[in-house]
Amino acid sequence: MDAFTSGPVSYLELVAVFVAAVSGGLAAVRKRFDVFGVLVLAWVTGLGGGILRDVLIGDTPPVGISSWKLVTAAIAAGVIIFFFHPGLERMRRSILVLDAAALALFVLQGTTKSLDLGAGVLASVVVGVLTAVGGGIMRDVLVGEVPLVFADRQLYAVPALIGAGITAGLWQLGVLGLGTGLGVVVLVFGFRVVSLARGWTVPRPGAGWTARWGRGSGRMER
Amino acid sequence: MDAFTSGPVSYLELVAVFVAAVSGGLAAVRKRFDVFGVLVLAWVTGLGGGILRDVLIGDTPPVGISSWKLVTAAIAAGVIIFFFHPGLERMRRSILVLDAAALALFVLQGTTKSLDLGAGVLASVVVGVLTAVGGGIMRDVLVGEVPLVFADRQLYAVPALIGAGITAGLWQLGVLGLGTGLGVVVLVFGFRVVSLARGWTVPRPGAGWTARWGRGSGRMER
Amino acid sequence: MDAFTSGPVSYLELVAVFVAAVSGGLAAVRKRFDVFGVLVLAWVTGLGGGILRDVLIGDTPPVGISSWKLVTAAIAAGVIIFFFHPGLERMRRSILVLDAAALALFVLQGTTKSLDLGAGVLASVVVGVLTAVGGGIMRDVLVGEVPLVFADRQLYAVPALIGAGITAGLWQLGVLGLGTGLGVVVLVFGFRVVSLARGWTVPRPGAGWTARWGRGSGRMER
Repeated sequence: MDAFTSGPVSYLELVAVFVAAVSGGLAAVRKRFDVFGVLVLAWVTGLGGGILRDVLIGDTPPVGISSWKLVTAAIAAGVIIFFFHPGLERMRRSILVLDAAALALFVLQGTTKSLDLGAGVLASVVVGVLTAVGGGIMRDVLVGEVPLVFADRQLYAVPALIGAGITAGLWQLGVLGLGTGLGVVVLVFGFRVVSLARGWTVPRPGAGWTARWGRGSGRMER
Repeated sequence: MDAFTSGPVSYLELVAVFVAAVSGGLAAVRKRFDVFGVLVLAWVTGLGGGILRDVLIGDTPPVGISSWKLVTAAIAAGVIIFFFHPGLERMRRSILVLDAAALALFVLQGTTKSLDLGAGVLASVVVGVLTAVGGGIMRDVLVGEVPLVFADRQLYAVPALIGAGITAGLWQLGVLGLGTGLGVVVLVFGFRVVSLARGWTVPRPGAGWTARWGRGSGRMER
Repeated sequence: MDAFTSGPVSYLELVAVFVAAVSGGLAAVRKRFDVFGVLVLAWVTGLGGGILRDVLIGDTPPVGISSWKLVTAAIAAGVIIFFFHPGLERMRRSILVLDAAALALFVLQGTTKSLDLGAGVLASVVVGVLTAVGGGIMRDVLVGEVPLVFADRQLYAVPALIGAGITAGLWQLGVLGLGTGLGVVVLVFGFRVVSLARGWTVPRPGAGWTARWGRGSGRMER
C-alpha cells in the first residue's frame, strides 16, 4: 500500500495535514495564545492523530515529528493563521469541505499503515479512527475545551469508523489498492459532506437522566 | 504469570474492564455527550490504563486496542449505559464494590505484566498503579474535570500502590503465583472497601497556604 | 555523549528534575490536591517531558519511571512541597533562576539522547523542546489550566527551540561534547534569565480577531 504514502497521494496528505493544522491554529488564536502556542496547536492538531497512531503501533519516532514535509505543512498553517486569520473567516465553508477530505484521507492512511505493520484488524480500525480524530481531541484538551467530537452530535467519527472498517475489510480480502482506497476516501468524504449539508446528527442519551451517581457526582453538576 | 492473563482470571479481567468502562460511560452521559462520546469514554476509562501501561513498557499495539474480548467488554458497557443509565443509579453501592475489585485486578495484572516484560521493579510498580488509575484520569481530563483521584482524598491510589509494591516484592522472591496473586487482590480490594465503609481519607497540604507564587500565580486563583 | 547522562552532569539533571517537580507540587497545592495528587503532579512535571521523549523515540520503559534516582528526586520535591510549601514562597526568584537552568539542561539532554538513538535531526529538535516543556504542559492540563507555555508570551519555548537547534547543529558537525554542550546550556539559561529580567515577550496574533469561525465557534466564546 505504498501508493498511499508516496506519489500523488502524499501531496494530498500534506493538504490534509495543512487543513487540520488550520483548525488548531484558529483555536489557539481564539484563546489568545502567543505565537508559540499558535504554532504548537497547529502542529498538534495537524499531526497529533498520526503521532498517536505511530506510538500505538510502535513505529517510532512518529512521522509527525520526523518528516520535514509533514512538519513544514503543519507549521506553515500555523504561520499563515498567525498573520492572516481574519481572512480565513470568509473561507469557512471551503475549509469545512477540505476538512472532510482530510478526515477521509487520514482514515484510509492510518488504517492501512497499521494493517501493513501487522497490528491486526481491530487495532487498525481503532488506530485509523484515532488518526482522523486524535489531533482534534488533543487540540480541544489543550485549549481547555471538552472535545467537540464527543459532544457536537455531528457525523464525524461515524464516517471515519465506517471508512476504517471498510478499509480493513478490503485489506483482508486482498483488494485494497489505489482504486478501492480512493473509493473509501470518496465514500467517507461524501458521507461527511452530505451529513453536514443535511444537518444529520447522532443521538444523545435519553434526557431523563438527572440523578446523581457515583464517586464525585456532586462536582459534576457544578 | 500466565495464570493472570488466561484461564479463570481472564474472565475477571473482562468484568474489571466492564466496571471501569461503566464509570466512563456515566461521566459522558452527565456531560451530555453523544453516542460516540459515550462509547469512547467507556473505552478510554475501561482500557486507557492498560493502553498507557503497554505504551510505557513498549508492548505495542496495546491489548486495549487489539483484543476483541477487552474492546467488546468496554464498548458493551458504553452501549448499556447509553440505553439504561437511569437503572444503574440504583446500583451505586454495588458498582463501588465492583470498582474496588477492578482496582485490585488492574494493579496485580499491570504490575505482573510489566515485571514479566523486564521493565524492572520501580517501573513495574509505577505502571501497575497507572494501569489502575490511568483510565479514570483520562476520563476526567476528557470531560473537563480535574482528576478525582488527585483531589478527592479517598484511599484509591494508596491501596493500588501498596498492592503493586507487594506484587513486585513477591515477584522478586519468586513466590508470585495464583495463590499469592489472589492474596494481593483480596488485600487491595479489602483495603479499598473498608476505607470506603469507614470514610478514611488521606491528608491535604496544610490550609495556611494563601500566598501567590511563581509563574502565572495570578491566574491560578481565578 | 555519555558525558551528559553520567558523571557530574547527571547530578545537575537531578537538580533540574527536582526544580521542575517543585513547580508541579506547588500547582497541586494551589488546587487543594491531596497528598497523592501532590506527589503525582511533582512526578509528572519533573519527569513527564522525559517520559514523552522516551515514548516518542521508542526507548521504553522511560527513565522517568525506571530510574530510582530520577523518581526519587521528583517525589522528594513533592514531599518537601507537601510539608513546607509556604517557605518556598520566599524563594520565588531563586526558583525561577533554577527553573531556567532546568530548561537548559532538559533541552541539551533531550536533544542529544534523541540524536544518539538515531531519531534524526528534526525529530530530535522537537523531542528536545518537548523534554523541556512537556512536563509543564502535562501539569497544566492535569490541574485544569490552559498550558502557560502557550499563552503567557514569555520567552520559554523560544530559548529551548534555539538550544535544541544549536545542539543538533553541533552534533551534525561532530563537535558536540562536554564543552560545547555546556556552552548550549549557558546560552539557553542566559537567554531565559535575561528575557525574564527585561520582561521580553513574544507576540500574540493581531487583536482585530473577533469573528466567529468554524465548528463549535459559539462555545469557544463562552
